[in-house]
Amino acid sequence: MRRLYIGIDVGGTNLKAGLVDEQGTILTAARMPLHFVDAEKFAADLAALAERVMRQGGVTAAEIASVGIGIPGAVKAGQILYTANIPMKQVPLETLFRRHLDLPVLLGNDADCAAVGEWSFGAGRGTQHFLVITLGTGIGGGMILGGRLYTGMGAGGEVGHILLKKDGERCNCGRRGCWEAYASASGLIRKVRRAMEQYPKSLLHRITAENGGVDGRTAFLAAQAQDTAAMAVCREYAENVAAGLTDLINILHPQVVALGGGIADAPEQLLLAPVREIVGGECYARHVDAVPQILRAELGNDAGLLGAAMLGRAI
Amino acid sequence: MRRLYIGIDVGGTNLKAGLVDEQGTILTAARMPLHFVDAEKFAADLAALAERVMRQGGVTAAEIASVGIGIPGAVKAGQILYTANIPMKQVPLETLFRRHLDLPVLLGNDADCAAVGEWSFGAGRGTQHFLVITLGTGIGGGMILGGRLYTGMGAGGEVGHILLKKDGERCNCGRRGCWEAYASASGLIRKVRRAMEQYPKSLLHRITAENGGVDGRTAFLAAQAQDTAAMAVCREYAENVAAGLTDLINILHPQVVALGGGIADAPEQLLLAPVREIVGGECYARHVDAVPQILRAELGNDAGLLGAAMLGRAI
Repeated sequence: MRRLYIGIDVGGTNLKAGLVDEQGTILTAARMPLHFVDAEKFAADLAALAERVMRQGGVTAAEIASVGIGIPGAVKAGQILYTANIPMKQVPLETLFRRHLDLPVLLGNDADCAAVGEWSFGAGRGTQHFLVITLGTGIGGGMILGGRLYTGMGAGGEVGHILLKKDGERCNCGRRGCWEAYASASGLIRKVRRAMEQYPKSLLHRITAENGGVDGRTAFLAAQAQDTAAMAVCREYAENVAAGLTDLINILHPQVVALGGGIADAPEQLLLAPVREIVGGECYARHVDAVPQILRAELGNDAGLLGAAMLGRAI
Repeated sequence: MRRLYIGIDVGGTNLKAGLVDEQGTILTAARMPLHFVDAEKFAADLAALAERVMRQGGVTAAEIASVGIGIPGAVKAGQILYTANIPMKQVPLETLFRRHLDLPVLLGNDADCAAVGEWSFGAGRGTQHFLVITLGTGIGGGMILGGRLYTGMGAGGEVGHILLKKDGERCNCGRRGCWEAYASASGLIRKVRRAMEQYPKSLLHRITAENGGVDGRTAFLAAQAQDTAAMAVCREYAENVAAGLTDLINILHPQVVALGGGIADAPEQLLLAPVREIVGGECYARHVDAVPQILRAELGNDAGLLGAAMLGRAI
């Protein structure tokens, strides 16, 4: 009999479920908007969505090995400890879900699910020690260490909150000088705004006007057109990304680091190439000729759903 | 039959071996000066030392489960990749050793052995996720993650080489602004010297004269006598120690962090107490009321030998 898996990705505004096979193919998927009322209805919605993909795929519960659910928050042993943008605390989600659909349930943090997804089917295939770093509004991180998802005592993987510069920029976490304050998309956008104030003739202004605002692509677009202010912003941003990656590599020495998030789609020569060059010249592993590979994440928005489906392999 | 272990600690100037039981008691120990000629003689010396503790303990090879050897350098699968202060590279130490004494041999880095020792019998007993950070000339680190010694692809655990301040103080590793440049004993001593230049009337001068130079205790001795310049140095040093610990905790969220090295013997209220307070107010795990314990390492100079003996439990 086939072994199939259901992965559910809980986003801020949508729930997305997929029926996944052992090769990482999403056989069929379904989504619904998240209208949060309470934890009971939330669990019922998740179960209904799982049943929908089973129906769409023409499979019965007997063929499903497990249902994995990626949560934007902290989870532990079938419980949601808390969620970031949905008002849930100490919710026994596994129990609530199984009242509707009695299948093995595994919960994971969403960044951890993305790491499991990339490790199972993407940039980290075949590795024992693997990191996914997501450069978005903040910096997210998921770690596969020794072939297992690592979360420490539950709050591990807050990789955005390591120092780049003590007493530096204020970070959302309350600390000053965190890597996230410099190397997230938000950190990049702040730098672009400062450069625009300083260089009124920079191409950054025109690109911003055309796109209706500064976003994570503004600096790269202007730098591709050889705008010197933008080129300096991109270089400094690459240095900041490389700085935190070097820290993580010095501590964990993974085989591969994958960069995800919208920013990772920046032109290779403006981001990944300089990041690789800087990390290669600074990380400790250069002394043993074992600098990790730094790759782009491969699975895009599917990483979380695929990783949720495969949680059973990693925990 | 008793299961006994031999641990050997290879220091810069001495070799020390101990016969160790499963409770971590060193039944008997022996040492010899390290006179390095070549890898063959080095292996023969280690085997002779192991045989000496067996003889002293009145046990035969049949009672020894394994011989663990802690090396100041990088090791992999029975090989020394390189050592820091002894001229060895790519040495098949296990093979060389077993020509003299045919027992199972396990090799470990010395900082890793110290972590295994503290985890087996010291400050990390009973934990799954545990770090030992050694504040000495540099900053060393050993990590037990998921109940196993973690070294990544071999060069993991270089915890001293994470940024405290990008483009800051020059570090021995070639990078600028590493934690080690601020929070090691050397970093502290540099701060004391600067304070002495700035405050010619500080008690730091008298203490330095009495002790024949600045060392890792100077600032703490003067601060205990309420010298304001020294108190400021100690406070800043505690902040610097806490900064790197917070980074490590945010990434790894261990249950316990143990501080070792001479500096960790500083008066509680001048180092461990402020470090705990700062980490507790800054680390991400405070959001889930799961701030790790920060303890003093317990085993002192025996940690490496005991950990070498117990390597088989951790790898």
